[in-house]
Amino acid sequence: MRNYDVVIIGGGPAGVQSAISARNSNPDKSIALIRKEGIALIPCGIPYTMHSLNSVDEDILPDALLQKNNIDMIHCDVIGKDNKILRLKDGNQIEFDKLVLAAGSIPIKPPIPGIDMDNIYVLSKDYEYLQKMREEISTARNIAIVGGGYVGVELADELVKKNINVTLIEKLPGLLPTSVDQEFGSIVQTELENQGVEIITGVGVEGFSKDGKNIKVELENGNSKIVDHVIISIGFKPDMRLAREFGLEIDEEYGVIVDEYMKTSDDDIFAAGDCVAKRSYLSGDFRRIMLASTAMSQGRLAGSNLFSINVLKVFHGTLGSFATKIGNTAVGATGLTETRAKAMKIKYCTGVSESVDRHPAKLPNASKMRIKLMFAKNSHILLGAQVSGGDSVGECINMLSVMIQKNMTDMEIDTLQIGTHPLLTPSPLAYGVINATVDAIMKWYN
Amino acid sequence: MRNYDVVIIGGGPAGVQSAISARNSNPDKSIALIRKEGIALIPCGIPYTMHSLNSVDEDILPDALLQKNNIDMIHCDVIGKDNKILRLKDGNQIEFDKLVLAAGSIPIKPPIPGIDMDNIYVLSKDYEYLQKMREEISTARNIAIVGGGYVGVELADELVKKNINVTLIEKLPGLLPTSVDQEFGSIVQTELENQGVEIITGVGVEGFSKDGKNIKVELENGNSKIVDHVIISIGFKPDMRLAREFGLEIDEEYGVIVDEYMKTSDDDIFAAGDCVAKRSYLSGDFRRIMLASTAMSQGRLAGSNLFSINVLKVFHGTLGSFATKIGNTAVGATGLTETRAKAMKIKYCTGVSESVDRHPAKLPNASKMRIKLMFAKNSHILLGAQVSGGDSVGECINMLSVMIQKNMTDMEIDTLQIGTHPLLTPSPLAYGVINATVDAIMKWYN
Repeated sequence: MRNYDVVIIGGGPAGVQSAISARNSNPDKSIALIRKEGIALIPCGIPYTMHSLNSVDEDILPDALLQKNNIDMIHCDVIGKDNKILRLKDGNQIEFDKLVLAAGSIPIKPPIPGIDMDNIYVLSKDYEYLQKMREEISTARNIAIVGGGYVGVELADELVKKNINVTLIEKLPGLLPTSVDQEFGSIVQTELENQGVEIITGVGVEGFSKDGKNIKVELENGNSKIVDHVIISIGFKPDMRLAREFGLEIDEEYGVIVDEYMKTSDDDIFAAGDCVAKRSYLSGDFRRIMLASTAMSQGRLAGSNLFSINVLKVFHGTLGSFATKIGNTAVGATGLTETRAKAMKIKYCTGVSESVDRHPAKLPNASKMRIKLMFAKNSHILLGAQVSGGDSVGECINMLSVMIQKNMTDMEIDTLQIGTHPLLTPSPLAYGVINATVDAIMKWYN
Repeated sequence: MRNYDVVIIGGGPAGVQSAISARNSNPDKSIALIRKEGIALIPCGIPYTMHSLNSVDEDILPDALLQKNNIDMIHCDVIGKDNKILRLKDGNQIEFDKLVLAAGSIPIKPPIPGIDMDNIYVLSKDYEYLQKMREEISTARNIAIVGGGYVGVELADELVKKNINVTLIEKLPGLLPTSVDQEFGSIVQTELENQGVEIITGVGVEGFSKDGKNIKVELENGNSKIVDHVIISIGFKPDMRLAREFGLEIDEEYGVIVDEYMKTSDDDIFAAGDCVAKRSYLSGDFRRIMLASTAMSQGRLAGSNLFSINVLKVFHGTLGSFATKIGNTAVGATGLTETRAKAMKIKYCTGVSESVDRHPAKLPNASKMRIKLMFAKNSHILLGAQVSGGDSVGECINMLSVMIQKNMTDMEIDTLQIGTHPLLTPSPLAYGVINATVDAIMKWYN
């Protein structure tokens, strides 16, 4: 029986980050990472394995990072635990002092009649499954994607570039419905429609049936759509199999319960990433946020604090900052949306701006940039931000994430010092984050 | 004689921003902007009028913003003042209640023998001068640029793209010598050299002489270079003509003295932008920082606070955040460089990271990203940052500027929540700002 000071279960971003942070904080401890998959993928790269990347292999999460940090890698499935000894499927046992559970998430397979037919895929993070799917859809003519969250819209964007006729179906009234307000969802919709994607929102799928060699997708409104392949991408749920096996406290819907430092109900077991129940920034209620960047942030905290609190957590709740790119337009959000703020009955004031992300606007690669900020009405702190524009949206969202995490107010942003450059940013006079702030200030002071 | 509540002198970013902010804070006041130029340019776009833009006209700062805000525009030169009445060159007089002086800066013309010869230009912000220069260098074969600051390197990048043989001469030992540490200056140097620019550093110019139809550029080390045109771009100095005329307190080298709210030694006169003496972030000493983004930040403060303090200034000193792009690589910096920190005898610790700004790295448009952060050794706050990489460097520098302005510490960045996306940012595991912070933490804790 092997024995390690630290054992991590799971080879995704949370697991790898926990391992690296554990190593950084504990140069002399023995650390092992156990994962059941032979090959781990970069999860957010998965949609891009369908077209932008030449193969699923180009999306492999390299093991070099673990080797470089002197972390042993064990390929096996964990099936149970007796005290501090893990039982592996191959009969081996591993003893640990501290354990990090980073079991990840599993795709949600909705109970739609006919879902088990051939040529209907439930998008997963499994290397072999994705290889098979990529191969099989290579000859597809008509594909329906069920689910208009970010993975669904990214998949639609990829598949339409393969000259496939794509129909994207979302049950809620718009795209990215839980991530952005609908003026930003409609930007994504326009980008996809301009490329020829057919978009059906506000209607669920009732069933799948055979139609010769094809699949008939039956919609709740009585309409139907004939396609040759269907990809289901309606989200993931926390993988709680081992948490249950280990007797950890869990929330049936949201995942493993952890404290501020990612410690579970068992003092020697931490958890991080998709399998963990996350509390939302500000409201404090559970939210299903499954982002690699969030997983990383949790993994860092778990890995650093296994034996003692080395890194104080200073920001409470999960922001869920994200960005994506559809067609030529990037869209991102951080903090609360207006929809969420209304639901939470927060008094807020919004500010908006439109600019061009180069100056003068006639420079090559200039994109229109739209920003919406939301401030707390009396406290004046930034609550949330949504941005669309060129590729700089990714880091712009991160700047806004920092502002939220540091409780920046409208007046602080009004006096902010930033840098601008013709080839890289909007002009200083048109800098959107500041101008949207001024718009909010004008609305409530004048 | 016309009479205005607010008069702004100067049509650059500081003037225009002062006018707009004055309007935002004072919907009912009468506001006029006086500028001597018939046409105002976007200053940071000037290098790009030589090639990337089709003409100097494409770099015009539009007057529409002023019209939209109901700001009268007066084209004339101000020559003096009697109490609160301005004397214009055309004989007219303008009475003001509050005045903002945004007189800008003028190019430094070094006392080098032969500098007044034909085909030697001192780069200015003047529309007609730039049109003439663009026209005259259209047939150039060999150009020497004197000055390797950001305008000089941007000009070199533009001219080499016109298939001109470019020699860039910088007196100090490397490029961007006062803006970045030399591991970043050398990135710019490599980008230019890869395009064929000849770079001479550590040597000043001693004189210019005729060589047939050409110009002989004589260097301090005895070498010389034969070219057909020379562009001098060694910086700008504050335009203090009117400040002297008005009897305002000035620093002879750095510009008009203002208080925290941009008020000069005269209670009714404010100043903003290049003509103002700026105190450096942290050290508090005067630094010659002339950036449109800094001018905008000052203009906003001046315009908002003319009649009463509406907007408290919460961050003291000038950061001087900037970014530029040379060849395919963007480079930016904010806060202190290591060189400055050493000169100030600050105890610091640096952290570095290298990553790729897309993930997986095989996605199109992936660029190598290098980050260097500097933290105060005992206080642990972020003091400065330098970044090179793809176009996202612009907004990444702004995120780092926010971090400095909010006194973020190493541990706060370690627990930061950010968003990542394959097509827009490095992978969460490789996110450079966090990994450079961890590198610094590891250096001083382990």
